[in-house]
Amino acid sequence: MTFFSNTRQVTVEWGHCDPAGIVFNPHFFEYFDASTVLLFEKALGMKKIDMMRTFDGDFPLVDARAKFLMPARFGDVVEITSQIAEFKRSSFRVSHLITNQGKLAVDGQETRVWVGLNTEDPAGIKSRPIPDAIINRLKTA
Amino acid sequence: MTFFSNTRQVTVEWGHCDPAGIVFNPHFFEYFDASTVLLFEKALGMKKIDMMRTFDGDFPLVDARAKFLMPARFGDVVEITSQIAEFKRSSFRVSHLITNQGKLAVDGQETRVWVGLNTEDPAGIKSRPIPDAIINRLKTA
Amino acid sequence: MTFFSNTRQVTVEWGHCDPAGIVFNPHFFEYFDASTVLLFEKALGMKKIDMMRTFDGDFPLVDARAKFLMPARFGDVVEITSQIAEFKRSSFRVSHLITNQGKLAVDGQETRVWVGLNTEDPAGIKSRPIPDAIINRLKTA
Amino acid sequence: MTFFSNTRQVTVEWGHCDPAGIVFNPHFFEYFDASTVLLFEKALGMKKIDMMRTFDGDFPLVDARAKFLMPARFGDVVEITSQIAEFKRSSFRVSHLITNQGKLAVDGQETRVWVGLNTEDPAGIKSRPIPDAIINRLKTA
Repeated sequence: MTFFSNTRQVTVEWGHCDPAGIVFNPHFFEYFDASTVLLFEKALGMKKIDMMRTFDGDFPLVDARAKFLMPARFGDVVEITSQIAEFKRSSFRVSHLITNQGKLAVDGQETRVWVGLNTEDPAGIKSRPIPDAIINRLKTA
Repeated sequence: MTFFSNTRQVTVEWGHCDPAGIVFNPHFFEYFDASTVLLFEKALGMKKIDMMRTFDGDFPLVDARAKFLMPARFGDVVEITSQIAEFKRSSFRVSHLITNQGKLAVDGQETRVWVGLNTEDPAGIKSRPIPDAIINRLKTA
Repeated sequence: MTFFSNTRQVTVEWGHCDPAGIVFNPHFFEYFDASTVLLFEKALGMKKIDMMRTFDGDFPLVDARAKFLMPARFGDVVEITSQIAEFKRSSFRVSHLITNQGKLAVDGQETRVWVGLNTEDPAGIKSRPIPDAIINRLKTA
Repeated sequence: MTFFSNTRQVTVEWGHCDPAGIVFNPHFFEYFDASTVLLFEKALGMKKIDMMRTFDGDFPLVDARAKFLMPARFGDVVEITSQIAEFKRSSFRVSHLITNQGKLAVDGQETRVWVGLNTEDPAGIKSRPIPDAIINRLKTA
């Protein structure tokens, strides 16, 4: 099974770069977060805030990792390709590959858990099975 | 009338600095925000979240400004002195002076409005008179 | 005399927003910085890094200020219109107006100084007259 | 062999938190970066910028990862314990454990490479063996 992917361009801003002149690594994790939101918005055809209301759920991050292979500098226009790598029952992994001038610069991955938002459980949010309607929208084959 | 002031030291982090090797200006506004929180916490003797509950209010920002006189660099330990500059009926100004090795580096100011948190007004939060108990705690003379 | 203006759209990201659900103010100053870069790049028809090389200069920030009139929230697509407000001999002001759903949300302004990059002066960078070629490209009338 | 460790406290700032009221994950990677700098500064007894000059080297990040086990909120004072997990010939791993009220909240790890700063090689910086003097200072047994 393969999944919907989305590629977007991000122009590296002055304020994302450090005194070595390259993107300060936490900003790549910001790029990942915004890219996952965009991936779901495009696949579902709705804003994330509407997804949260429609499906009574959200997908907080439980693991993030990245390999930094090549730097990106102020003014570089990088391409971020994001795609579901795996769906489990109540969690999923998103792959984020960032290329700079055609070469792989960052190889990143997020693991997120599907949780319900409204619950009477005083212990708060709990993981839940990912809704089929969401999985179906993210499948491409 | 003069007001309680608080001075704190902040070590400039690598990630706060840009490719010119100096603090990227938005980070100074982050320093201001955290300094105002600390000023109130020290004057009131409680965490800000407890202030919000105790006084049913908060102080959102309506104006911020800064003059940048000298840069600060990675590893510099700057001193931030914050003090109420003026109390009006429902707003107040906070002055933030940042020195680096004894010289004034940034001269900043925030204007904040006191608002109530719980209201039956469907239009939401509204400015309110600043509680006397808060003003009294911030006065020094 | 009026000056070239540029309007761009920015989608408010989750990570730009604070626990009140609104853009944390320092991020607006990041928007300003990136908007000024883009204004010059569009007017001059070159990347900022090429401007720095071509004109042997840069424009560090010496003053920034903003009035926050209305909040912006996660997912809002705000419009930022940036325009030179005034050219002086070696400094200039840039106006940044941010609208959210057609209403003015933030009224900001930066003052920047033109400085030379290469200098034999051991005291380092110095302000210089803004090159005519730059002023002419930013004039519209 | 065990290595020098350093524990520091960080107060979670308003601007680090997102609309869910919890630290936005990229800020944890900022905490890691600043914690690694501090670990080396304490072990070596010098500022990082002096380390770079003394040893003609730096340690850029090539891999970062974190498991997010429990959230941290505005005003929480978290403890970050950082320690070398492994030294290889020209790279090393740093473990960062963040606890919140005594419970493990974030389990993070960075991999960094030792590189020389001054080189006549036109291809730029290259990895080099980590200086013995640095390894010796970070050993505790």
